[in-house]
Amino acid sequence: MTTLEDGRRILAELMGADYVATKDKKRNSFNEAIQEYSEEVCFGRTWARDGIDRKQRSIINIAMLTALNRPNQLRHHIEGALTNGCTVAELKEILLQTAVYCGLPAAGEAFRIAEEVLRERGLLD
Amino acid sequence: MTTLEDGRRILAELMGADYVATKDKKRNSFNEAIQEYSEEVCFGRTWARDGIDRKQRSIINIAMLTALNRPNQLRHHIEGALTNGCTVAELKEILLQTAVYCGLPAAGEAFRIAEEVLRERGLLD
Amino acid sequence: MTTLEDGRRILAELMGADYVATKDKKRNSFNEAIQEYSEEVCFGRTWARDGIDRKQRSIINIAMLTALNRPNQLRHHIEGALTNGCTVAELKEILLQTAVYCGLPAAGEAFRIAEEVLRERGLLD
Amino acid sequence: MTTLEDGRRILAELMGADYVATKDKKRNSFNEAIQEYSEEVCFGRTWARDGIDRKQRSIINIAMLTALNRPNQLRHHIEGALTNGCTVAELKEILLQTAVYCGLPAAGEAFRIAEEVLRERGLLD
Amino acid sequence: MTTLEDGRRILAELMGADYVATKDKKRNSFNEAIQEYSEEVCFGRTWARDGIDRKQRSIINIAMLTALNRPNQLRHHIEGALTNGCTVAELKEILLQTAVYCGLPAAGEAFRIAEEVLRERGLLD
Amino acid sequence: MTTLEDGRRILAELMGADYVATKDKKRNSFNEAIQEYSEEVCFGRTWARDGIDRKQRSIINIAMLTALNRPNQLRHHIEGALTNGCTVAELKEILLQTAVYCGLPAAGEAFRIAEEVLRERGLLD
Repeated sequence: MTTLEDGRRILAELMGADYVATKDKKRNSFNEAIQEYSEEVCFGRTWARDGIDRKQRSIINIAMLTALNRPNQLRHHIEGALTNGCTVAELKEILLQTAVYCGLPAAGEAFRIAEEVLRERGLLD
Repeated sequence: MTTLEDGRRILAELMGADYVATKDKKRNSFNEAIQEYSEEVCFGRTWARDGIDRKQRSIINIAMLTALNRPNQLRHHIEGALTNGCTVAELKEILLQTAVYCGLPAAGEAFRIAEEVLRERGLLD
Repeated sequence: MTTLEDGRRILAELMGADYVATKDKKRNSFNEAIQEYSEEVCFGRTWARDGIDRKQRSIINIAMLTALNRPNQLRHHIEGALTNGCTVAELKEILLQTAVYCGLPAAGEAFRIAEEVLRERGLLD
Repeated sequence: MTTLEDGRRILAELMGADYVATKDKKRNSFNEAIQEYSEEVCFGRTWARDGIDRKQRSIINIAMLTALNRPNQLRHHIEGALTNGCTVAELKEILLQTAVYCGLPAAGEAFRIAEEVLRERGLLD
Repeated sequence: MTTLEDGRRILAELMGADYVATKDKKRNSFNEAIQEYSEEVCFGRTWARDGIDRKQRSIINIAMLTALNRPNQLRHHIEGALTNGCTVAELKEILLQTAVYCGLPAAGEAFRIAEEVLRERGLLD
Repeated sequence: MTTLEDGRRILAELMGADYVATKDKKRNSFNEAIQEYSEEVCFGRTWARDGIDRKQRSIINIAMLTALNRPNQLRHHIEGALTNGCTVAELKEILLQTAVYCGLPAAGEAFRIAEEVLRERGLLD
């Protein structure tokens, strides 16, 4: 299997086949190189590695994307984290820790996004 | 045990008793409030929580501090991560993943700092 | 009075009783720890301190939140600054200074948000 | 010609006369100083300089605004870049390079914004 | 008085005549335009404005430079703040507040720099 | 030629054969994956692309690395830019423009680093 095929398979396992299908429909001559970069470099080359499991990779991403102030990608990776077995209780702990290191505004936004994801999935009491 | 005592105990377990003793010697009327903030809010209130273990908290911090461009604290938390059972192979994977999301310059600096810590500890071949 | 009660009182004085009531209605098992963190650590522990007055704390926040690129919280703290006695003329000066140090794009966004707040309050000619 | 007039002329050439007219209509006692700062310091003092051409200045801005996480201004300067002769193929290369240095989330957002601009202008196949 | 002369006078009042003399000796064909930008745009155009006093401008800068992760300039503006009448107690409060909003690593670095300035000036007990 | 070989050749052309030789000597089991990432993804996959020339890629990097606050990599890419035909006058213009968009502290640091590089190369009058 090539790195690209590997990456697409992992992306589908992480975000769902629908996500990949939607992405493929939007592919055009302008964005195909960055889509391949995402599939090959990010998923096929990095996420495909051994050494830490996918749940761990999701958790790292939640921490980084909160620090980097990237709410759209944070939402996707909170969804991915839940898919990869991260519990709601663990998600809460990760985001609480971002408050100390990234500041309360960063953590507040991350909690707001996480709540929307949890509500959509019926995971909020 | 108070939150402050709890925090100081956890900090000592993470960074070593010498680290805390050195910090205590540097305490003065100007910095005591931020030192207490660190001990109480960061370690006594956040690190002391259940839900994820200390190795996980260390890993989250490595990801955040790389993204936040804070090399001095990154160094301390790489040391803490090794203390908390993070292996060199896991550290490598975490930092490789920062290259994709935070960019290569951020990852390059983090690898440079990690190498210095590993060399000091005789963990580099 | 406990730190938590102190923080809730200060938050209500800063943002209004309605703001706190709305926040309380949204409280759930997922967000209660970050809400307590906000009320205790941010307002009860930090804003409650003497040494600088609340108007000064609001002004510091406007500067930081502009630099940190956090528009939602910037809006709340521009409202808080007006409540704490910051004049429109002072707000203008603070934001003009962010242009020099944070760059024009950061200042431009901050002015846009401030204008929305001022218009809602009938403070724009 | 004064620096201010120079700046307004360059801004009109970059963003279009309509953009400047709309901006002028929104001018009020609160925002006039930052608008003058933009026209004089940014366009009249900096963009007006010789040494590199306007296409180069647009390209630099796209790189900086992607790194700085400022999507609204990025959109304007992608439009300006196209006006200044930057081709779609060049735009793609610039944004691909941001993926390596700023990280994939920053590049992904920049591509998304660029696609919207290109679609509005009928430049996407 | 021109904006440039105004800016140089304010810079000398803020940082000392020696600071300006040292800066002038380092002036060359490469850096003269940015030095003029600093003197004219930053000090002659912005710091020279009425509406908030210089102590307030110093305080805003400490907040922004901590958030922006710019330790060299933070050091200069902590010195400027002390010159402009900011007390050690006020400085402590400002930096404590950065811990909540910018995160503990940012505040920790700012305290470290402030301590060095205070020690040089004999202001630390 | 493989992507890796391509990348190593481009890196040598950009930074010099000595730079690559030094890097190779420092290669070990911990850093080899990030070195390969740099050589393959950054240089072999991205810098190797057509569409914009290497001088343009260097200029983009100077803008991004100034915005990203990464002084070590900025130094290397200022050197690379000079190698790729960027003149001192162009370098000055690029950095002046960062003052407007990234803020004066970012530009000031970038000028300081550029001056060191220019002095080492005898390019400062």
